[in-house]
Amino acid sequence: MFNVLSQKMMLLKMFFKLENTLTQESSLSITGTVQEDKRSKGGVEIIASNINVVHIADEYPIALKDHGVSFLMDNRHLWLRSKRQFAIMKIRQRTIKAIRDFFDDRGFVLIDSPMFTGNAVEGTTTLFETDYFNRSAYLTQSGQLYQEAAAMAFGKTYCFGPCFRAEKSKTRKHLTEFWMVEPEMAYCDINQNMDIIEEFISYIISDCLKHCSQELEILERDLSKLENISSPFPRISYDDAVKILKDKNRDFKYGSDFGAPDEEAIASEFDKPVMIHSWPHKTKAFYMKRDKTDKYALGVDVLAPEGYGEVVGGGQREDDHDLLVKRIKEHKLPVDAFKWYLDLRKYGSVPHSGFGLGLERTVSWICGIDHIRQTIPFPRTMGRLEP
Amino acid sequence: MFNVLSQKMMLLKMFFKLENTLTQESSLSITGTVQEDKRSKGGVEIIASNINVVHIADEYPIALKDHGVSFLMDNRHLWLRSKRQFAIMKIRQRTIKAIRDFFDDRGFVLIDSPMFTGNAVEGTTTLFETDYFNRSAYLTQSGQLYQEAAAMAFGKTYCFGPCFRAEKSKTRKHLTEFWMVEPEMAYCDINQNMDIIEEFISYIISDCLKHCSQELEILERDLSKLENISSPFPRISYDDAVKILKDKNRDFKYGSDFGAPDEEAIASEFDKPVMIHSWPHKTKAFYMKRDKTDKYALGVDVLAPEGYGEVVGGGQREDDHDLLVKRIKEHKLPVDAFKWYLDLRKYGSVPHSGFGLGLERTVSWICGIDHIRQTIPFPRTMGRLEP
Repeated sequence: MFNVLSQKMMLLKMFFKLENTLTQESSLSITGTVQEDKRSKGGVEIIASNINVVHIADEYPIALKDHGVSFLMDNRHLWLRSKRQFAIMKIRQRTIKAIRDFFDDRGFVLIDSPMFTGNAVEGTTTLFETDYFNRSAYLTQSGQLYQEAAAMAFGKTYCFGPCFRAEKSKTRKHLTEFWMVEPEMAYCDINQNMDIIEEFISYIISDCLKHCSQELEILERDLSKLENISSPFPRISYDDAVKILKDKNRDFKYGSDFGAPDEEAIASEFDKPVMIHSWPHKTKAFYMKRDKTDKYALGVDVLAPEGYGEVVGGGQREDDHDLLVKRIKEHKLPVDAFKWYLDLRKYGSVPHSGFGLGLERTVSWICGIDHIRQTIPFPRTMGRLEP
Repeated sequence: MFNVLSQKMMLLKMFFKLENTLTQESSLSITGTVQEDKRSKGGVEIIASNINVVHIADEYPIALKDHGVSFLMDNRHLWLRSKRQFAIMKIRQRTIKAIRDFFDDRGFVLIDSPMFTGNAVEGTTTLFETDYFNRSAYLTQSGQLYQEAAAMAFGKTYCFGPCFRAEKSKTRKHLTEFWMVEPEMAYCDINQNMDIIEEFISYIISDCLKHCSQELEILERDLSKLENISSPFPRISYDDAVKILKDKNRDFKYGSDFGAPDEEAIASEFDKPVMIHSWPHKTKAFYMKRDKTDKYALGVDVLAPEGYGEVVGGGQREDDHDLLVKRIKEHKLPVDAFKWYLDLRKYGSVPHSGFGLGLERTVSWICGIDHIRQTIPFPRTMGRLEP
């Protein structure tokens, strides 16, 4: 809409001598005849026969000059009107559609995981808590456990909705409220899981390239970086990844998780997303299945290229009831809270795997923008709850 | 998946003499040749060459006998495996796809509204509150105000995500956590809004009829009730609706909202959704535009037929800055909290309208089921937070 308006406004100002009244962001309704005009950017012009001024705007606070980020974020409801933000929102919409189409077209059943959970099974440190009719409820950090129940019912399922993390983190990759898609598949091992992850990511990228060329042009995205994203992706073990860090003389303690600078150093070796598998089991959650050596968890993290960090985390789940109970105890978690989850290993347990892909990090990567806060309409961070 | 397994299990039990070990919900992997067999319900049979028992299930708690609702809800993670629940989930998935396709295909920009809001602008009674880094945040009840900002930027927008209401309500139509789609349109008045609502609802119903015939058959849904749903829908004023109640000798106080039994009495007069417009302004929110008489708010509620209640609420918004400030004060709301919302009336305000459609009530109606708790995978109600 703003495209048409801004182009026409120039023309109309001249024809209707409204220069002094038609301020930026004023609203008009124009009646006229559309005709082809190759000189126009949109390829058409309107020959106006009538013009109705709907609203004369006050002086618009966002000027063409550079504003600080804080000012723009305070005025997010207006900042959204800019061409760049419009392009990002369109790419976000297309990414969401691509994600849903991918799973819908492949026989996955959509099973929305709940937002409220009754148990803080892995500690309350990064959970948002609310009073729920005189008891505590916690906002979901991941729908995975529910997807496992769903996959045991329907074979292949996914959820796609908001997740919440109360992390005291101010990095450019963290939001307190973000969207995540989490598929889960019965009869699927870690290798098949990685096959699906690379097919999925490739699909999203190629779909956006196909449908968002105008938007990517507005963002001046280097398309060659995206055109390169297709199966297969490099697959390296955690130990291989550590070797890369050592070769680069980075200070890294074996057995810890990779920090953002580590991720960047590893990812910079590849021009495609790199899948890191076979993690020392202590780095991963209790529900991860281990490999035959019992040393490594069958988890996989996927790092996007160009320093965009982890976009996918996933793995094969422990499907044996007794081993799972053992793990819960090893992690000092309350077995009682997992009663329903353990049921899934009692009534027809099968090998199964899944993963989660963070929407905003993915959109950030596709758009080639440096801060995740621009990839969601109304971002929520540690210091930001408005507008 | 369960279809194939349950049919085959009968056959396999005989052939492989596993009668005593293959309990209900056990998992198998079967290798064999698929061949056509008209006697089979699915039209094919597998001539098995190998069978691998993956997991022998413990005695399954859900038997064929009738269980109480509370027991089934406690075992929702297993109850989902039943044929009826599968059918409902598939219809839910299709409804969601139809909703998204409708707006995506008509040029609406998807602008997810935030889940966290910093101000409890209309009181905290039905809001869930959380500690947000030493201040209060509230879970969203509606994304509408954000959609108004979005529609002023992009013309036509929508959001579709979870909403939360801490209502102390135990009716069969209430969840504390539910999904709602909320489109908002610039240059759209209440009548155009109603045009879009009826087009939208008709699209969802016809799309589900087209793609979910098997599922609707499992649910034994009377299809004639749905096949009838097409534009135009009856449009009656609030005063007309009150007249219906009076004619039926119902005790109703003019100027109040309709209760569930009132809604049923009104809806029973029609075999299509009925759109009730022109509400006494005191029954509606502060942001509703009034008609020329200043007596009525330009709101619209849509009641589904067959007693499924209100599925849509919407209206035209007040677009004049000063009138909106006046309304905020009349409703004794804090003007400061609406600073950003009022900005939308300063910088190019235009007539605009929108509405919200509740997903679960709509799925309930399509499926023809009597309680909303079956329309969401893991329902959350006043007394239910698990599993």
